[in-house]
Amino acid sequence: MPSSTLANPRTIKVGFLGFGTVGEGTHRMLSDNVDEIFRKTGAKINITSIGIKDASKARCLPSELFTTDLKSIVTDPKIDVVLELIGGEELAGEMVDLALDHGKHVVTANKELIAKQGSRLISKARKKNLDLHFEAAVGGGIPVVQALKHQLAGNDVIKLMGILNGTTNYILTRMEAEGANFADVLADAQKLGYAEADSTNDVDGFDTMYKIAILAAITFGKQVDLSDIHREGIRSIGTEDMHYAEVFGYRIKLLGICEEIEPDTLMVRVHPTMIPRTHQLAHVDDVFNAVWLKGDFVGDLMFSGRGAGGDPTASAVVGDLIDVCRNIVNEGDGSAIPYGEGMKSLPISELETRYYLRLEVQDCPGTLGQISTTLGRRKVGLTAMEMKSKVGGLGEIAFLTHVCREEDFVAAIEEVGNLDCVTKIESWMRVEQS
Amino acid sequence: MPSSTLANPRTIKVGFLGFGTVGEGTHRMLSDNVDEIFRKTGAKINITSIGIKDASKARCLPSELFTTDLKSIVTDPKIDVVLELIGGEELAGEMVDLALDHGKHVVTANKELIAKQGSRLISKARKKNLDLHFEAAVGGGIPVVQALKHQLAGNDVIKLMGILNGTTNYILTRMEAEGANFADVLADAQKLGYAEADSTNDVDGFDTMYKIAILAAITFGKQVDLSDIHREGIRSIGTEDMHYAEVFGYRIKLLGICEEIEPDTLMVRVHPTMIPRTHQLAHVDDVFNAVWLKGDFVGDLMFSGRGAGGDPTASAVVGDLIDVCRNIVNEGDGSAIPYGEGMKSLPISELETRYYLRLEVQDCPGTLGQISTTLGRRKVGLTAMEMKSKVGGLGEIAFLTHVCREEDFVAAIEEVGNLDCVTKIESWMRVEQS
Repeated sequence: MPSSTLANPRTIKVGFLGFGTVGEGTHRMLSDNVDEIFRKTGAKINITSIGIKDASKARCLPSELFTTDLKSIVTDPKIDVVLELIGGEELAGEMVDLALDHGKHVVTANKELIAKQGSRLISKARKKNLDLHFEAAVGGGIPVVQALKHQLAGNDVIKLMGILNGTTNYILTRMEAEGANFADVLADAQKLGYAEADSTNDVDGFDTMYKIAILAAITFGKQVDLSDIHREGIRSIGTEDMHYAEVFGYRIKLLGICEEIEPDTLMVRVHPTMIPRTHQLAHVDDVFNAVWLKGDFVGDLMFSGRGAGGDPTASAVVGDLIDVCRNIVNEGDGSAIPYGEGMKSLPISELETRYYLRLEVQDCPGTLGQISTTLGRRKVGLTAMEMKSKVGGLGEIAFLTHVCREEDFVAAIEEVGNLDCVTKIESWMRVEQS
Repeated sequence: MPSSTLANPRTIKVGFLGFGTVGEGTHRMLSDNVDEIFRKTGAKINITSIGIKDASKARCLPSELFTTDLKSIVTDPKIDVVLELIGGEELAGEMVDLALDHGKHVVTANKELIAKQGSRLISKARKKNLDLHFEAAVGGGIPVVQALKHQLAGNDVIKLMGILNGTTNYILTRMEAEGANFADVLADAQKLGYAEADSTNDVDGFDTMYKIAILAAITFGKQVDLSDIHREGIRSIGTEDMHYAEVFGYRIKLLGICEEIEPDTLMVRVHPTMIPRTHQLAHVDDVFNAVWLKGDFVGDLMFSGRGAGGDPTASAVVGDLIDVCRNIVNEGDGSAIPYGEGMKSLPISELETRYYLRLEVQDCPGTLGQISTTLGRRKVGLTAMEMKSKVGGLGEIAFLTHVCREEDFVAAIEEVGNLDCVTKIESWMRVEQS
């Protein structure tokens, strides 16, 4: 029989680490939905303490709830569940370790920590029959992590692609809509609060890398070494590239992509990608995130929603907490699903895909012939071409290629760059077909 | 400690009821993924018997697995889990009841049964600490049922809309793309196997009604009486309506919609709807299904994927079965989440929304003035108008209205129909703004 009944509800004591926008949103969501959560879990949630860095900040909750002594929370014998909402690897990792050592279930929103130490931490939780949930670490409120762990668990996932960073998707959407360049949109996004002053984590693809690493680990069952993941950001995308993407029927998105090449060998990568306008991911705009996947049984599936922000992330944290509560009330054994380490991710040079290439050339007869012959010698065939004249006898050519191997493509464009008729390799980009 | 270890895996015995495309797909998925399922659950699945109607059909599995005596399966003391894949209400309901009576966990793909008897069956399962899962009943392989029950459980859902029937979405997509009329596309869809010979269940919205009823029950916690749900199908949509939808910037989809009007009072409805091209649901085409919702914390969220077919549905059945196995291995108490009955759904006359209206009129000065004055008297304001001349002094006018009350709109168009300058009310449709 469930240990909790209407007459005698189980009280579950929760400690917060961190009280920024996610912590504040989580607190508000728990307070707003006490009855609903009780109906779904049979438990009353009691927030006993909130660990913070700066005790001097004004907060609209009783001051005795707050402490700067985080260790006192993760070691408190009365606390059942710790919500880790600090972010970053070091302090957060130390606290999660201590919390597990002291027999606490953990819910975390920390993508960096799970991407780097998930395998070890989840195994530790499993050995102690504790829950360690991290839905909020990927895609904000989008419930993709649990779906991969549970509902889709019977599928072999063939490929998974995600728009996993709201800031870069917002910037790309505006660049396309306004014909504006990257630097201007970034500056404006920073002014509006859509991008942080230090934009490296978002714009250079680190945030996306952490998230695709987590999705790869839970999908394929082993953690990938982050240093094996090819990572490019969106700084070098020009307005001309946006133009040619449209001409060719594509849109440019920063994607995290993983696919299984052979058992225990993935290709995991983060880079700007041209995807066809007919693909569902092409319609995910502004700050929205999405995860698309193809499973052997489920077929094509997509989740989309708000990938960041206090309230959507709180939704995921509370969803995880509800699962922990249900597990405590039902006296289950903890539902952490361990995964190992040492998943191999192939170098990007072994990728086989289509490419977009933009060149500045001498605008004269024979140029196209020389370029296509040079590419062809490296087994790079062309499927589409657009050319326009520029001032001073120069021209611009954009191509789409057939599927070829990245190392062939890279070698080919080096040779193309040495042709007399080619004055500059302006840019190139990987293209997804479906 | 988990009762199952690598050295001593727990074997879970499963009986099938039904072996059509979903049953066959489920069997194949379980066979293909034995190791993966063991890794995720700690259990080995053993299919002990398969209940079928027609023993004479050739099947590529040992004949001793099959029986036409379904009762022998649901009462077999050795069986742990019953997969109900028969469909329909009567026989399936009887078998699920018996299975629960005999202490078996149940996974079902049966939308009609859950829509009609879900509250009673889930409560029964809960009282016996058994699981009763039904992810496959809504949206095929799209994991929306579990997401609503678990990850999104802390949200107040403000509105939920779904493209829940693949056949009608396929027909509407083709009508729009080809400018073809309903009857021709239906006939072709039947020839191609996308629509059944008896298309009533799909085309007249029954299938969508069952599914939106289930989504409403798990989202808002109480079952709605199906007779309270307003239901319209897609038979009356004309090629002209498709044309004006495009002119006004909309697409026509058959939606199941539920929203909370006040606590314990919903508006649940099924009808063709114009939705803006900027809405994510507008890009869900062909046989794809999608569920979109707005939660108070998570914001806008959408799931899309294959809503029918043997393999996608099998994906959901196996996902549920994996959860049951994990629960058995972890010695949990069953995770059925009961909901009550008696949720009120308001009559469609109380709906407040925007409308599309198409009229055949006398093509002469003053016509528009008379119509808009008549509508205005009933508090129906206009936001867009398109008119074209037809032969014989006739014309066609299409309008979009401001938000108004359905009973006002219906009364208004009755009066409009009585005007001398209006020769025919061709069609009208509800319009969603966001």
